[in-house]
Amino acid sequence: MKTNQTSFKKRGVDYKVPDIMLTLPREYYQSEGIYREELEKIFCKRWLLACREEEIPKPGDFITIPVGDESIILVRDKNGKMQAHFNVCRHRGTRLCETEKGRFASGSIQCPYHAWQYDLTGRLRAAPLMKEVPGFEKEEYGLFPAHVGLWGGFVFINLAEKPAPFEEEMGALLTRFEDWQLPELRIAHKIEYTLNCNWKLILQNYQECYHCPGVHPLLSQLTPFRNAVHDCFEGAVIGGYMELTEKRGSMTMDGQAAAPPVCNVSGDNLQRVHYYSVYPNLLLSPHPDFVLYHRIRSLAYDKIQNDCYFLLHPDVINQPKMMQRFQSAIEFWDMTNRQDWQVCEQMQQGLKSHRFKRGRYSGQEDILYALDKEGLRALGHKLPE
Amino acid sequence: MKTNQTSFKKRGVDYKVPDIMLTLPREYYQSEGIYREELEKIFCKRWLLACREEEIPKPGDFITIPVGDESIILVRDKNGKMQAHFNVCRHRGTRLCETEKGRFASGSIQCPYHAWQYDLTGRLRAAPLMKEVPGFEKEEYGLFPAHVGLWGGFVFINLAEKPAPFEEEMGALLTRFEDWQLPELRIAHKIEYTLNCNWKLILQNYQECYHCPGVHPLLSQLTPFRNAVHDCFEGAVIGGYMELTEKRGSMTMDGQAAAPPVCNVSGDNLQRVHYYSVYPNLLLSPHPDFVLYHRIRSLAYDKIQNDCYFLLHPDVINQPKMMQRFQSAIEFWDMTNRQDWQVCEQMQQGLKSHRFKRGRYSGQEDILYALDKEGLRALGHKLPE
Amino acid sequence: MKTNQTSFKKRGVDYKVPDIMLTLPREYYQSEGIYREELEKIFCKRWLLACREEEIPKPGDFITIPVGDESIILVRDKNGKMQAHFNVCRHRGTRLCETEKGRFASGSIQCPYHAWQYDLTGRLRAAPLMKEVPGFEKEEYGLFPAHVGLWGGFVFINLAEKPAPFEEEMGALLTRFEDWQLPELRIAHKIEYTLNCNWKLILQNYQECYHCPGVHPLLSQLTPFRNAVHDCFEGAVIGGYMELTEKRGSMTMDGQAAAPPVCNVSGDNLQRVHYYSVYPNLLLSPHPDFVLYHRIRSLAYDKIQNDCYFLLHPDVINQPKMMQRFQSAIEFWDMTNRQDWQVCEQMQQGLKSHRFKRGRYSGQEDILYALDKEGLRALGHKLPE
Ligand code: FES
Ligand code: FES
Ligand code: FES
Repeated sequence: MKTNQTSFKKRGVDYKVPDIMLTLPREYYQSEGIYREELEKIFCKRWLLACREEEIPKPGDFITIPVGDESIILVRDKNGKMQAHFNVCRHRGTRLCETEKGRFASGSIQCPYHAWQYDLTGRLRAAPLMKEVPGFEKEEYGLFPAHVGLWGGFVFINLAEKPAPFEEEMGALLTRFEDWQLPELRIAHKIEYTLNCNWKLILQNYQECYHCPGVHPLLSQLTPFRNAVHDCFEGAVIGGYMELTEKRGSMTMDGQAAAPPVCNVSGDNLQRVHYYSVYPNLLLSPHPDFVLYHRIRSLAYDKIQNDCYFLLHPDVINQPKMMQRFQSAIEFWDMTNRQDWQVCEQMQQGLKSHRFKRGRYSGQEDILYALDKEGLRALGHKLPE
Repeated sequence: MKTNQTSFKKRGVDYKVPDIMLTLPREYYQSEGIYREELEKIFCKRWLLACREEEIPKPGDFITIPVGDESIILVRDKNGKMQAHFNVCRHRGTRLCETEKGRFASGSIQCPYHAWQYDLTGRLRAAPLMKEVPGFEKEEYGLFPAHVGLWGGFVFINLAEKPAPFEEEMGALLTRFEDWQLPELRIAHKIEYTLNCNWKLILQNYQECYHCPGVHPLLSQLTPFRNAVHDCFEGAVIGGYMELTEKRGSMTMDGQAAAPPVCNVSGDNLQRVHYYSVYPNLLLSPHPDFVLYHRIRSLAYDKIQNDCYFLLHPDVINQPKMMQRFQSAIEFWDMTNRQDWQVCEQMQQGLKSHRFKRGRYSGQEDILYALDKEGLRALGHKLPE
Repeated sequence: MKTNQTSFKKRGVDYKVPDIMLTLPREYYQSEGIYREELEKIFCKRWLLACREEEIPKPGDFITIPVGDESIILVRDKNGKMQAHFNVCRHRGTRLCETEKGRFASGSIQCPYHAWQYDLTGRLRAAPLMKEVPGFEKEEYGLFPAHVGLWGGFVFINLAEKPAPFEEEMGALLTRFEDWQLPELRIAHKIEYTLNCNWKLILQNYQECYHCPGVHPLLSQLTPFRNAVHDCFEGAVIGGYMELTEKRGSMTMDGQAAAPPVCNVSGDNLQRVHYYSVYPNLLLSPHPDFVLYHRIRSLAYDKIQNDCYFLLHPDVINQPKMMQRFQSAIEFWDMTNRQDWQVCEQMQQGLKSHRFKRGRYSGQEDILYALDKEGLRALGHKLPE
């Protein structure tokens, strides 16, 4: 099929898209084989949101992060630096640490099996009796390292041996949202969801508001879907914003702000809700009065864990009365999230059909076409258009 | 191995079968790969029993029918005609409908995601904003159709793009059982079973009474297994009847009829219980005084749902006293079913063995050999005999 | 990589091992494919511990033994001889027997489906109506036989058509432990465990005490790990002993013997605990005062059932006071087992990592390298060293 290019003037942006934008074939949502390829080429190669810095506050504090078959220990070392290690002993492969979070009180990581000991930077410190072994060099048996990237109080990890530089891949992000002073913010609330759908459906859901009138009546009232503007169109960071109809409004049950503007937020940003996907596992939504983000963990081709966080300035968190008012934002997003999960899970079911080959994106969904292309590029797949 | 033909004079029929009739190799019951092939070439190509017409009585009423990875919406349209559609939105593949049965009150089927709207015949009626999309033609985006066949109050569906004509495939059925006036009958009772065995084991179990003396002592008394006569030997419809020893008997706990003869049933049929398999998912058993049928849904290579229905004339159903007497038939068949399920499940277990290659059918099981051939033909498989 | 041989003088034995001993690649613990190969080439070809003779005391008594997809009936025939049969009817493959243990009271094994009847030696005794079938010879349809080997009151089975002779494969075992008079002993206690790890990790765990100081503080006190001596280095029987520090000591909570010495045990054996793996599913530990053994059943590549038995002379078992004292041995081993299960399960988790390729054995683990080689030989696999 020959593809023509149409110059769409839409959502305020002059942006060329092909006339015919087809969705990914169903296999991309249903095949164990493609999923394993995604684990290898996307989740084990790209920068992943791990946590907020505040979650590992002191030297020795750690969390473990599942990534497909891998497990990563993210730990703050004695100098306060973030270190990420594969959670696997170099002796015979025992998982070092089975708890989700904790503290290496002794300042070292010890294998529970034969007691090999690593320091927090991953160096092998002690390996009983291995001195007897001809040619064994302790220096060669440090923990396998993962890479760490920091931005705005967020901690990212990368499992690749030679990852694309963090600053390059996240370029579009680094210069954004300075007014929010993200590193100052703290987690005010967290909601955990487990969903029976492919991880990509959640990213797609987040980047189009074609579904909003039917799925989110209240959201559509606060930010009409025709007010959506994208300003990042390709690469790992894709997104834009929607305009609030109410002055000093926000995404809450009554449409009024849930808190004072965050730090230095002013001007246009007082009327905007931003929606960025940071490929492949962070959805980031600075609001005028708070920051919402989702961390996606893919558990199977048809199962994810999605943790939804609300960030606020500590001055707000510390005031019970303000937090009481803030419930309105939590309630709004919990309701809206569940509306989305429902349709994403139903799409996962529908895509089981072998009769359905590929669908056709509307003009409102051109950015999903860009997301799909980002994934195909990472996989090294070419599809007929 | 060279196969000789023996002319068996058995069960009153002169019928040639090979001397050596081997069972299917164990893989046909244990392999995920062959099962997927069966889903594609049998369940998605052949006529399947969906339901009784009475289950979708009014325009807008629907049920959804799982068939492997597919789901079909069976709905009565505004003109009272049965329509079958793949339960998948043509936009991006969302499953349209997740409930097992219900009613499209608005007279249309709306996708829960982006609100595309289809009428009950499957035509795309409305697709928000798609007018903007160059070259998009609503006519090309109707729901994928499945085919519908009607006989005796039963509704069959076929998921193939070009199915074999219903009248052709079901030929042997269409002229049978007129005296029962099947369209007049209604569901008097339903029992649902979930079984851990391959679907073919149930069809086989239904077509031989070699197991009856050991497995069904009571049944064997009411209809001795030597009284079995087959009169349909190949194709989708295979079966025959057994003779009741008691005058005005039936398959009940005391061997006496459970209800008056059905409609015009008379003569020989007053002494016969018929057993037909309608390949691949209907087992049909007209009795003198009621009609029993099983609808098989294959859920996995080793798991099925088997729903067992009892049909009676409304005149019987509406008389509580008659229905009380009818319990005896329900009780008999529930007991007998469970006896069968036990051995079928145990056969499924045994067929896990890699040491067991193929068994050998007795002369009482020649019709199973025919059933196996029907399946192999559908799969396009050839086996050494 | 060129492999040098080092002559290690360790644990009292002069024994050559390569300088670099690598562990098996992770796939050997995580791959469904390799696991299926192990079922075929190891579990269905090698001698497996089935039970103790006392568990099938009288003619007609039987147990069923799951081995991968197979099930074996082990039965004592009319002459008191042990017989092992595949638990699958030769007619159409029904599993004959679903209970774990029982008694064929009638002296025959009858298929529940069509009532074919086999005698306890596996001969087909009766097959209803098969006389009608041209060329059917009852002699050709006996149950598929498995082989039986007896030693020391233990019953072994072998599913191969032509197994290696029992006496050859078990050679190193047959001449050992005569002083314990193993056939005289009886099961005093049994503990059942289900573990989420590969079966090989349990064999490995049993053959090295490099982990003891960290994992088993009490055991390490009773038998310091430097006291380990191996005296069987290759083949199906691999093992050695550890020396007790206490005079008249044993593996109990207080380190004192739990019972009088077993039968004729004397001299050095009063100070030794033996640890033998009988490949692939028996771990055998004669102590001065009792015999401990584990029977391993592999349920999946990452799941086993491990049943731990304690054998004593009936004279001890029959004295309640002695049995009360014996609790100390049971308590000790239950605690120690659980310590081992924990690290084995954690190793199974760690080996999921694709980053971890192969580890490096310490000098304390050379015997694991021998175990790995035994497995690779059985599979016919060659690995780069
Ligand atoms: S596996 Fe970690 S020390 Fe042995
Ligand atoms: S998927 Fe149905 S309208 Fe979009
Ligand atoms: S399967 Fe055993 S007798 Fe038929």
